Amino acid sequence: MEAINNFKYSSVSPGEIRQKIRSGEITWNTSGMCAGFAQANLVILRKDKAYDFLLFAQRNPKSCPILEVTDIGARTLNYIAKDADIAKDIPKYRIYRNGILDLECTDVSKFWRDDFVSFLIGCSFSFESSLIESSISVRHIDEGKNVPMYITNIDCLPAGVFSGKMVVSMRPIPYNQVVKATTITQAMPRVHGAPIHIGDPSKIGIKDLDKPEFGDSVNIKEGEVPVFWCCGVTPQSVIMNSKPDFVITHSPGHMLITDIKNIDLKD
Amino acid sequence: MEAINNFKYSSVSPGEIRQKIRSGEITWNTSGMCAGFAQANLVILRKDKAYDFLLFAQRNPKSCPILEVTDIGARTLNYIAKDADIAKDIPKYRIYRNGILDLECTDVSKFWRDDFVSFLIGCSFSFESSLIESSISVRHIDEGKNVPMYITNIDCLPAGVFSGKMVVSMRPIPYNQVVKATTITQAMPRVHGAPIHIGDPSKIGIKDLDKPEFGDSVNIKEGEVPVFWCCGVTPQSVIMNSKPDFVITHSPGHMLITDIKNIDLKD
Repeated sequence: MEAINNFKYSSVSPGEIRQKIRSGEITWNTSGMCAGFAQANLVILRKDKAYDFLLFAQRNPKSCPILEVTDIGARTLNYIAKDADIAKDIPKYRIYRNGILDLECTDVSKFWRDDFVSFLIGCSFSFESSLIESSISVRHIDEGKNVPMYITNIDCLPAGVFSGKMVVSMRPIPYNQVVKATTITQAMPRVHGAPIHIGDPSKIGIKDLDKPEFGDSVNIKEGEVPVFWCCGVTPQSVIMNSKPDFVITHSPGHMLITDIKNIDLKD
Repeated sequence: MEAINNFKYSSVSPGEIRQKIRSGEITWNTSGMCAGFAQANLVILRKDKAYDFLLFAQRNPKSCPILEVTDIGARTLNYIAKDADIAKDIPKYRIYRNGILDLECTDVSKFWRDDFVSFLIGCSFSFESSLIESSISVRHIDEGKNVPMYITNIDCLPAGVFSGKMVVSMRPIPYNQVVKATTITQAMPRVHGAPIHIGDPSKIGIKDLDKPEFGDSVNIKEGEVPVFWCCGVTPQSVIMNSKPDFVITHSPGHMLITDIKNIDLKD
């Protein structure tokens, strides 16, 4: 229902939407807003964890494609969203203490600290737009569901306090579109890039496609192949594994809308 | 003359060459050794500067394509060179104190500290191999010179204590091979990737192609276009700009030979 309401925001500029979010006029999910513009995942860590997380991202770029890292303590962004306020421009935040969800809120300015570093991370929503433009349908969108996500048996490369298994998302693709889906997404490394695996789920430790660990299961039709991409849940899960004393993230689906067009993520 | 001596090492394995370097048998430049394997630039910083440098690399990936970052204090690598000893496996090191070259040596183990972080950075040598394999000649190699490098008027995106102008290398390419040279290098983002500029040098603040700030000038023939790529001198120069109290680098041309094939840098 929320997504339908958002249709009227599909051609509003990112700056205007961020203003409506900041003022409290918009407090719901950003799905479908500002068509063509990239939306970003948010993780805010204290500086003492920021080096390890940046190194984790460097070692696992397909799982953790960073669009921007703020300067220490800064609530502003320099590159992907002009005049944004990180503490207010996301419709709903989650605050975790010692790895446990403590509360959700629409403004985190009263929690702000001078040692916060914010990481804005690319989202597969950007490449799904490109798939659809190339006539590759995206099943979970067609079925009005969340994408199915699975914990694999693939270890991320660890970095400092951060380690864990890779989480992947799955989209069923017809055999005759698998190569096209691979090359389209390969050209978008800042939003997870090429698939990590094509075909037999058991090869990456997935036992039952009908039982995703996160999101919803989707229908796989005759003549379709399950194709797996690295997923933005991975960085969130490795952070929580380390039980940091204080972390702020966006609430799922409630993203930062950037000024960057999805098409400009092809580089 | 050294390069000629190195011909006999062109088909020796990287692990064997690293052993000869470690034992002191090889103390000269690594040009031409271990054909097909990537060689890497080295920067060793103390941990208090490592976050800023990692962030600088994240913000300037074409200038500073990181192949691996060690764990804090580690002399070993986990990914690009098995059983390597960072403190001994480079034929010649440079030690800088407060931004000034203090000494050159073949072993830095006696200077080692528990707070050192080593950055291994991709080198354009890898993409030059690919250009040559694709029948695009590389002028400075043909002329037996060092590549010409220029300081541009393009600001790197600053990060913490690190900032400065982008340094580029230039290779003259015939008009009918410019597109091919662009697409070949674009596919190798871990070794600087696609050109940053094609054609008129004045557009990026270069006044005289015959007067490179580093390296040697090369002949540009009729019907050739100067093509500019981001250069590994950029991270070195921004580090020195910040006058860090203690830095170790490789001595120019004396690289770490990795176990990674150049062709595997295409991803």
